[in-house]
Amino acid sequence: MIRVKRHASFGGWVDYYKHASRATGTEMKFSVYLPPQAAKERRPVVYFLSGLTCTEENFTVKSGVQAHAAKHGLIIVAPDTSPRGAGIEGETASWDFGAGAGFYVDATVEPWAKHYKMFSYVSEELPALIAAELPVRADRQGVMGHSMGGHGALVLGLRKPEQYLSVSAFSPICAPSRCPWGEKAFNGYLGPDREAWRQYDATELVATARIRRPLLIDQGAADEFLESQLKPQLLAAACTKADHPLELRQREGYDHSYFFIASFLGEHVEHHARALLA
Amino acid sequence: MIRVKRHASFGGWVDYYKHASRATGTEMKFSVYLPPQAAKERRPVVYFLSGLTCTEENFTVKSGVQAHAAKHGLIIVAPDTSPRGAGIEGETASWDFGAGAGFYVDATVEPWAKHYKMFSYVSEELPALIAAELPVRADRQGVMGHSMGGHGALVLGLRKPEQYLSVSAFSPICAPSRCPWGEKAFNGYLGPDREAWRQYDATELVATARIRRPLLIDQGAADEFLESQLKPQLLAAACTKADHPLELRQREGYDHSYFFIASFLGEHVEHHARALLA
Repeated sequence: MIRVKRHASFGGWVDYYKHASRATGTEMKFSVYLPPQAAKERRPVVYFLSGLTCTEENFTVKSGVQAHAAKHGLIIVAPDTSPRGAGIEGETASWDFGAGAGFYVDATVEPWAKHYKMFSYVSEELPALIAAELPVRADRQGVMGHSMGGHGALVLGLRKPEQYLSVSAFSPICAPSRCPWGEKAFNGYLGPDREAWRQYDATELVATARIRRPLLIDQGAADEFLESQLKPQLLAAACTKADHPLELRQREGYDHSYFFIASFLGEHVEHHARALLA
Repeated sequence: MIRVKRHASFGGWVDYYKHASRATGTEMKFSVYLPPQAAKERRPVVYFLSGLTCTEENFTVKSGVQAHAAKHGLIIVAPDTSPRGAGIEGETASWDFGAGAGFYVDATVEPWAKHYKMFSYVSEELPALIAAELPVRADRQGVMGHSMGGHGALVLGLRKPEQYLSVSAFSPICAPSRCPWGEKAFNGYLGPDREAWRQYDATELVATARIRRPLLIDQGAADEFLESQLKPQLLAAACTKADHPLELRQREGYDHSYFFIASFLGEHVEHHARALLA
């Protein structure tokens, strides 16, 4: 992996990297925040998965995460949201499918299957790379995300609870099998068999979670996508049925933007710090 | 003035406005952060002047100012850095002159003189508009800025100490008459007579300041523009000579970016809060 840029930040460093990915067969990019504590010892790491159209940069420059991560001594890793430049026809034709919209699944349908392996990338290849190259405690990982990335964080947390000790999400797509964004993505990446979609749908996965890690979700009540795409009430009902611990906070007046994320990110980082520093 | 966008943020609101400006003869844009306290009473206001190429958005989305402003109950106003669309030939040809580079001066040289009146705009027209339309305490104003906007903040603070009770800057252009960015701008907007430049050069103005308000400056030691453009040592020498209070902090490892601003912005907002809430 090659460091492309570095900025001092809150006593630590914001670093941007690129590397050749085996999972996607493309170059992939991510950002890392190294808190001051990481200069002396290995520290826990929290992955942040971003939403539709985002790159590794949005969360890094807009969320203010560095202040919170420096306070608790957590390393933050923010990957890009898809392969780029895979050379697939139509890759950049939609803002909600293809480039910038990997949906954190391993595609099985051509022409996407060769490159769009974001589930493997974010939950296997990238953590292994980070563990080999950076001062993380690989036994202390958390995951959070926003919107499409909130969906990704919930899915990773529910499917790999041994790997991710803490999980949280902002305005996640809670039931992607039952909303337009998710149906378009799953049809395109996974094909029409809805049985194959279940492994990437948090509302389905809650029923069979092996370890019941508490889920923390913040949701803006004025979010323009709440009713049509996000549907937290479906996840809440599934959690109630499965007796899965969920803290779902409705925030009056807040929308889907990074201003919302920034407002409550301190509480999410604290949630991860409690689990990862315990 | 027309509100274009609004986002809930840290219990308050980030608002974007546009309005027809008399000073510039163009439409102008700015952002406002209203902290929660402003819903109940008039609050002090701090203006943030941005650097080259910025609009009203950069500081608003990248600095994390809302957390600090909400803590102290300060209103923050971030104007655009120049007129846009004035229709002047060459207006957008340079990144360091014309659009995005108003330098907070009142141009006297054609074709700029008709529209590029940023000193009058930020220090007269905009504060009057804000005082008329928003719940600010017009007798409690501060000013801060970054780079070109740090220069602007120092000049406003030194020339209008009755208006601005507190002043601070990140990596300001401290002696614009003696660096390439400033010389290009002043030649273009004010003409070759260097006598006319003195009123817009903090290092010159310190000698004759009517009220000696303390200046707070943070400067990254790894700033790529430090030696060539910013020259804080010239301002420091002028302050020593004039016995003007200056706190100039060199920050090891920090560059010219918003990651630097964000890292120390809490201390700057505190500096303003101490003066404005006293």
